[in-house]
Amino acid sequence: MKKNKLFAVGIGPGGEEHMTQKALKVLEEADIIIGYTAYIELVKKIFPEKEYIATAMKKEIERCKIAVEQSLEGKTVAMVSSGDSGIYGMAGILLQLVNAQKEAIDFEVIPGVTAANAAAAILGAPLMHDFSVISLSDLMTPLDLIMKRVECSAEGDFVICLYNPKSKKRTDYITKAAEIVGKYRSENTPVGIVRNAGREDESSEIVSLKDIDKANIDMFTIVIIGNSQSYIENGKIITPRGYKL
Amino acid sequence: MKKNKLFAVGIGPGGEEHMTQKALKVLEEADIIIGYTAYIELVKKIFPEKEYIATAMKKEIERCKIAVEQSLEGKTVAMVSSGDSGIYGMAGILLQLVNAQKEAIDFEVIPGVTAANAAAAILGAPLMHDFSVISLSDLMTPLDLIMKRVECSAEGDFVICLYNPKSKKRTDYITKAAEIVGKYRSENTPVGIVRNAGREDESSEIVSLKDIDKANIDMFTIVIIGNSQSYIENGKIITPRGYKL
Ligand SMILES: C[S@@+](CC[C@H](N)C(=O)[O-])C[C@H]1O[C@@H](n2cnc3c(N)ncnc32)[C@H](O)[C@@H]1O
Ligand SMILES: C[S@@+](CC[C@H](N)C(=O)[O-])C[C@H]1O[C@@H](n2cnc3c(N)ncnc32)[C@H](O)[C@@H]1O
Repeated sequence: MKKNKLFAVGIGPGGEEHMTQKALKVLEEADIIIGYTAYIELVKKIFPEKEYIATAMKKEIERCKIAVEQSLEGKTVAMVSSGDSGIYGMAGILLQLVNAQKEAIDFEVIPGVTAANAAAAILGAPLMHDFSVISLSDLMTPLDLIMKRVECSAEGDFVICLYNPKSKKRTDYITKAAEIVGKYRSENTPVGIVRNAGREDESSEIVSLKDIDKANIDMFTIVIIGNSQSYIENGKIITPRGYKL
Repeated sequence: MKKNKLFAVGIGPGGEEHMTQKALKVLEEADIIIGYTAYIELVKKIFPEKEYIATAMKKEIERCKIAVEQSLEGKTVAMVSSGDSGIYGMAGILLQLVNAQKEAIDFEVIPGVTAANAAAAILGAPLMHDFSVISLSDLMTPLDLIMKRVECSAEGDFVICLYNPKSKKRTDYITKAAEIVGKYRSENTPVGIVRNAGREDESSEIVSLKDIDKANIDMFTIVIIGNSQSYIENGKIITPRGYKL
């Protein structure tokens, strides 16, 4: 019997080590694995014998449509996202497309370790208290709304995780965000910056809010701004939860 | 040579399937594994032959002190947290204690899949847009600050993930939080409720904001409140990212 089976698989921030058992199992059992070229290269190292379709960046909808078509042909399809596919990944578009089909597709999301968790582990313990997650990409979201969210997060003294902090076209949003946060928090607030967490060329640095412009930030980077209680000790960021030790 | 090695390991929301390769490797190589009884039972199923120390709930600091002492004796120690140990887990206290020692301890955080990601995967794709993560536990945080964060999140139209939504003593904070959100969002806003994600008795339901009081919520539950764009389709929550399909 033909079964239409589609998985959105979060492969974690880097290579095999941060993948879950379930993600590996689903990839192993898939007939075809689809994703952005860089992630397909990663997965190919683990499963060299699979059928793959790699598509360019920014071709999200096209990529998801191919995945849905392949599953409608009766194949078991795995669409990979870096990190968690439910966070700025492919899970949402896939679910929308699946819902729009006449034929039923058995669709499942396999969660993964998202960039914020991976970066936090490298930086120490910055996310021990309430936090917000904001993408600075304005491809799909009006800039006003993005900055309003930054402001609300600053006002609520949230630790703030910024995905997509910079691209070649968008270079000054991170500065603007830091300025907004600076209205509510000390200019010495610790900011952790992690590039390519879990990948070969992983790097990280910790700066203070006022020096965010001097840091090396690009589209492979995640930025975590501490809350009013966060501090730096022995090169790590700690956001204390209020325990007396 | 004696080496003092301590890991804070996030084991993911449930059993083995959501653990990362790295978490499994660290547990396998540890001399002793320490944690809250329920998680130790889980890990024992995978590595029956290890040395274990299991401590009761709410004994976090005691548990972390034992872990640090054991590592100072030269053992390789793994302290387990459910989900990600950097999110309302043990990473922070451990790092504070490690920093307070005279002797150096090599300390590493191994990230894991946190409850929000696991629950989102079960619910569909609720976290596709900016979100906040708030704990409703007021053991360590003044209730006023918690509710201020709920209000800021509502104002910023964040999807809201509520950890520790209820305990036996705290039964009405979730109602209060829903009331605050209701000032900014429709009473029909979808709310996803997932209990014991990834565990044997996993269950989930989707209700509207106005019916949150009728839902079955306890301390093993995470609550995800959609933003103004979130909708329910085929029994799943979608928070669209603005893609035209
Ligand atoms: C389109 S989002 C994808 C997020 C991904 N689905 C996740 O859950 O991590 C891309 C952004 O995620 C962040 N990111 C993803 N992987 C990363 C990594 N390994 N190291 C640092 N940042 C990363 C960066 O901010 C990047 O601009
Ligand atoms: C002290 S916090 C620990 C969070 C954990 N470190 C994590 O990253 O998921 C405990 C709260 O996490 C949430 N939680 C943890 N594991 C869960 C699971 N498997 N299913 C649903 N909620 C869970 C619940 O809200 C619970 O009250």
